[in-house]
Amino acid sequence: MTQHIRISEVGLRDGLQSIDRVMSTEAKKAWILAEVAAGVTEMEVGSFVPPSLLPQMADTAEIVAFAKTVPELAVVALVPNLKGAERAIAAGVDKMSIPFSMSETHSLKNVRKNHAEMLEQIAAIARLVAAQPEGQRPQFEVGLSTAFGCTMEGPVPEDQVVRLAEQTIAAGVAEVCLSDTTGYANPAQVRRLVRAVKAAVGADRLNTLHLHNTRGLGLANVLAGLEEGITTFDSSMGGIGGCPFAPGASGNIVTEDLVFMLEAMGLHTGIDIAGLIEVRRIIAEALPGEPLYGFIPDAGVTLGFERVVG
Amino acid sequence: MTQHIRISEVGLRDGLQSIDRVMSTEAKKAWILAEVAAGVTEMEVGSFVPPSLLPQMADTAEIVAFAKTVPELAVVALVPNLKGAERAIAAGVDKMSIPFSMSETHSLKNVRKNHAEMLEQIAAIARLVAAQPEGQRPQFEVGLSTAFGCTMEGPVPEDQVVRLAEQTIAAGVAEVCLSDTTGYANPAQVRRLVRAVKAAVGADRLNTLHLHNTRGLGLANVLAGLEEGITTFDSSMGGIGGCPFAPGASGNIVTEDLVFMLEAMGLHTGIDIAGLIEVRRIIAEALPGEPLYGFIPDAGVTLGFERVVG
Repeated sequence: MTQHIRISEVGLRDGLQSIDRVMSTEAKKAWILAEVAAGVTEMEVGSFVPPSLLPQMADTAEIVAFAKTVPELAVVALVPNLKGAERAIAAGVDKMSIPFSMSETHSLKNVRKNHAEMLEQIAAIARLVAAQPEGQRPQFEVGLSTAFGCTMEGPVPEDQVVRLAEQTIAAGVAEVCLSDTTGYANPAQVRRLVRAVKAAVGADRLNTLHLHNTRGLGLANVLAGLEEGITTFDSSMGGIGGCPFAPGASGNIVTEDLVFMLEAMGLHTGIDIAGLIEVRRIIAEALPGEPLYGFIPDAGVTLGFERVVG
Repeated sequence: MTQHIRISEVGLRDGLQSIDRVMSTEAKKAWILAEVAAGVTEMEVGSFVPPSLLPQMADTAEIVAFAKTVPELAVVALVPNLKGAERAIAAGVDKMSIPFSMSETHSLKNVRKNHAEMLEQIAAIARLVAAQPEGQRPQFEVGLSTAFGCTMEGPVPEDQVVRLAEQTIAAGVAEVCLSDTTGYANPAQVRRLVRAVKAAVGADRLNTLHLHNTRGLGLANVLAGLEEGITTFDSSMGGIGGCPFAPGASGNIVTEDLVFMLEAMGLHTGIDIAGLIEVRRIIAEALPGEPLYGFIPDAGVTLGFERVVG
């Protein structure tokens, strides 16, 4: 049986939050419908941050409510803190994710909390989640951001990431994700760090990588992750996105190219590339002039691709 | 001890032959000197094709003669046939390479020879090489082009590539290279085909991959090759290049990004990235307006990179 790899689309959150313009709520809804039609089953649709900070995310509650009406879609939102988690739960998300920066400098700059304060916040959210009635309890994942290096600190010690991953799980969290917020990761490091974190916290507690393509190594890093048993990859339509608080770090891996690579390798994503090209058209219309990245939209799939992937 | 990976720069041949404009002989010489200063030790500097066919390559004999005066540089040229091989030997190349298309359709279209005729030609060149006096005998490598798929035929059967590789070695050739002329390769296929060819002809007779980045998978394919024991990778400064006879297939993997990935992974190339940026400046000046690709020239290396790579 062909192995299934899950793509978690983060363009509506990580992509749009890094663009100054605000995409209309209607365009976001059209994007969600088209991408689900293409076969995507998980989307991070927004962020419960104060609208004053990120006006692009002001309609997140409405978008979550809409996305919840779409069959077969796991609806994810980012939450920066306990207050955001309360709003996310009220909105009815299936899953929420909080970024926890492995670089303390980046954490202080980004959310004005040190590691100890972040772990307290994470524990409080974990308690909030556990207190929800069965059946209404969202998944809660902590994204270990800047795990592969920081634009302010440079290299982040791997044993520090492992230790903070252990403390995160000890705080009552089911799952962590390793995030290359800054586009610093290389394949050898991905392999080493995934292995070390899985060994420390349990293989089933690290299933997801969030990779950027800032230095062109995004898909090579995916390959390294696959080899270490990663089964979910975040990516962004057109590669839009980045971290507004990590200067110079932009560009999520491109959903279109990622799906092509995985399908060409004989893995199963359930996603149709022609359908993704249609999503891209919707985004290009909603954000005219915004640069969209990716090779497959220009080069097309290989001749005989349909035969190869069956 | 850190493993050494060789980069074979092919921009002066594969890059320039796909650009209509003719780079001046002086600019080519400046490029060679600057790239050797950056630490590159092997460069394919031209092609012994009729100047009427590729005027960009008309000065190849002069460029080879010049490159031979540069210490520590292995000087490679492409030869399309026996006549080209005679010219390459007369010019004094250290190594010559002939493309042998695994897709018979592509071979007929490109050089008007079927597989049997190509194998005869290859055997004739192998005899010519063997007849050279000891110490003046160039290395002779056959590039198994379109090995990962063809823009005219689509998928190329892997057992056909293995069989033709065996026949190539049987024709008296020391080494083959697998070439993704068309940008069709994916990492699973790279791993499978490298393994199969090495098993069939001997591991030491396949050391090199020539990969393109047409679909963004170039560096992921490098990673797959590394894992199967490949030790030499062709690449092109700024990613210029492609195959003029394979429509839509363009873009060698980018030397700057490749060196960054390998060094970041802890492998040793002996190449200085700042030196490559200087080469890029020379190319940009010589070919104003020509698109140059790559992520590292824009994003820069990671903070602390020098510490990481030692």
